Amino acid sequence: MSAVTVALVQHTADGGPADVWTRIEGGVREARARGDDLVLLQELHNGPYFCQWENAAEFARAEPIPGPSTERLGALAQELSLVIVGSLFERRASGLYHNTAVVFERDGRLVGRYRKMHIPDDPGFYEKYYFTPGDLGFTPIATSVGRLGVLVCWDQWYPEAARLMALAGADMLLYPTAIGFDPRDDEAEKARQKEAWELVQRGHAVANGIPVLAANRCGHEPDPSGATPGIAFWGGSFACGPQGEWLARADDAPCVLIARIEPQKTERTRQIWPFLRDRRIEAYADLQKRYRD
Amino acid sequence: MSAVTVALVQHTADGGPADVWTRIEGGVREARARGDDLVLLQELHNGPYFCQWENAAEFARAEPIPGPSTERLGALAQELSLVIVGSLFERRASGLYHNTAVVFERDGRLVGRYRKMHIPDDPGFYEKYYFTPGDLGFTPIATSVGRLGVLVCWDQWYPEAARLMALAGADMLLYPTAIGFDPRDDEAEKARQKEAWELVQRGHAVANGIPVLAANRCGHEPDPSGATPGIAFWGGSFACGPQGEWLARADDAPCVLIARIEPQKTERTRQIWPFLRDRRIEAYADLQKRYRD
Repeated sequence: MSAVTVALVQHTADGGPADVWTRIEGGVREARARGDDLVLLQELHNGPYFCQWENAAEFARAEPIPGPSTERLGALAQELSLVIVGSLFERRASGLYHNTAVVFERDGRLVGRYRKMHIPDDPGFYEKYYFTPGDLGFTPIATSVGRLGVLVCWDQWYPEAARLMALAGADMLLYPTAIGFDPRDDEAEKARQKEAWELVQRGHAVANGIPVLAANRCGHEPDPSGATPGIAFWGGSFACGPQGEWLARADDAPCVLIARIEPQKTERTRQIWPFLRDRRIEAYADLQKRYRD
Repeated sequence: MSAVTVALVQHTADGGPADVWTRIEGGVREARARGDDLVLLQELHNGPYFCQWENAAEFARAEPIPGPSTERLGALAQELSLVIVGSLFERRASGLYHNTAVVFERDGRLVGRYRKMHIPDDPGFYEKYYFTPGDLGFTPIATSVGRLGVLVCWDQWYPEAARLMALAGADMLLYPTAIGFDPRDDEAEKARQKEAWELVQRGHAVANGIPVLAANRCGHEPDPSGATPGIAFWGGSFACGPQGEWLARADDAPCVLIARIEPQKTERTRQIWPFLRDRRIEAYADLQKRYRD
């Protein structure tokens, strides 16, 4: 496999749907102009992060897959001849919704989807209200730029998800994500949270010897209920290599972050540190327990 | 549980057994004088890292457990009234050896052992020749300073080991370790390796919301075969908290590194980021496979 140029599009969600789409499309076109092969979009990129409250009216944002957004993203992938990973609010059936990543090939075809398996729920992130946990498991999606281990946001905290993707032959892990600061936290707590978010994902890169990409939202989004100061999405989209080393790292401003992934580094890294050789699989059964008590 | 003061003793292995023991005992006494409750020693602390070559004469270093070294460490724990985690070359039977961590209570009793489960083997680290993989699984050892999730060196690269200890109620993870640079690697590769080693362990702290301690060897040790330039053990012993945040971090010189662990931070961290709540245990069966092909 040859090197892959990847782009992570990090943007704000203010304005109407047309404004947001202009940002997404502009980011993808800029990426292509800069030689990109693969674009990773942020979580639920089509509009505001609506999970800040629980309100049944928000279900109107959901759409079927395939549907209007997959048509639009597929057309863009085809026009620019690149692979796009998007993130949508999927309406699977009446009363059944998922947080779903979608992958488009260079010819515009929708070649796979991943339904977010681990669903968070904490103040400002009421995702258990909106999303049924995924039922497709952890399976990489084959594309012309490699087997993509697509996961979503909260999944990033779970070494199990990263490992299962690596064991299934993923060439890289990709996380569309939506994470930010509670403006009421102090600066030290904010710094710890952001570094923890980087550490755990870079740790997956190291443990599995594969590159990791994370595209995060940026900008402040108000709480629609008015009850809290909202969320300051911290941006910080990044790409790291198979030793967890930084390849590219954004600050908190909108950007198109470009990185070059060299899949042959995975082979070399796994040869000097052959972790997959020595797993004690006969001693791992209790990973399927909730707790070992 | 109240706060625990921990000490990591990082030392060189040159000189004879008496010299090395003087360093160990001096380090433990210094730790006690500085208010320590728990001492973590480095991997195979009693002498040189003999796994740089494969030579049957090295098996003479092994000893039974209990045996001379556990008597000595137990007596020191009792005299100073602190908990000690040591690391020994265990002779279990004729022709059957393990790389084994041992835990002593404040009254000097040997209260538990852990036999290294993941065994490395790469140039300069020929451990598969010396050590049978452990058969005790991943079980924390209960002490007066908490349930110690004791693992050893190569285990540090395995998220499975960290998770199984956390699921069994470990209050912290502790790694006696022996890792260093091949002097022939360039500086960029050395920097990537050392940071990867930190990242993966700090990642375990984040993923499990628990503190992590790692005590590493330091100093150059020649290859007894003379075939290579030996290993430059990089020191860098460290303690981090449940968000992966640094608590203490050594450079590459001998030292007694002190850190203060606050177990109540684990509870708080797991309440703001409740990862254990959302594990998809019904989707993890394939973690018991060698590869998903």
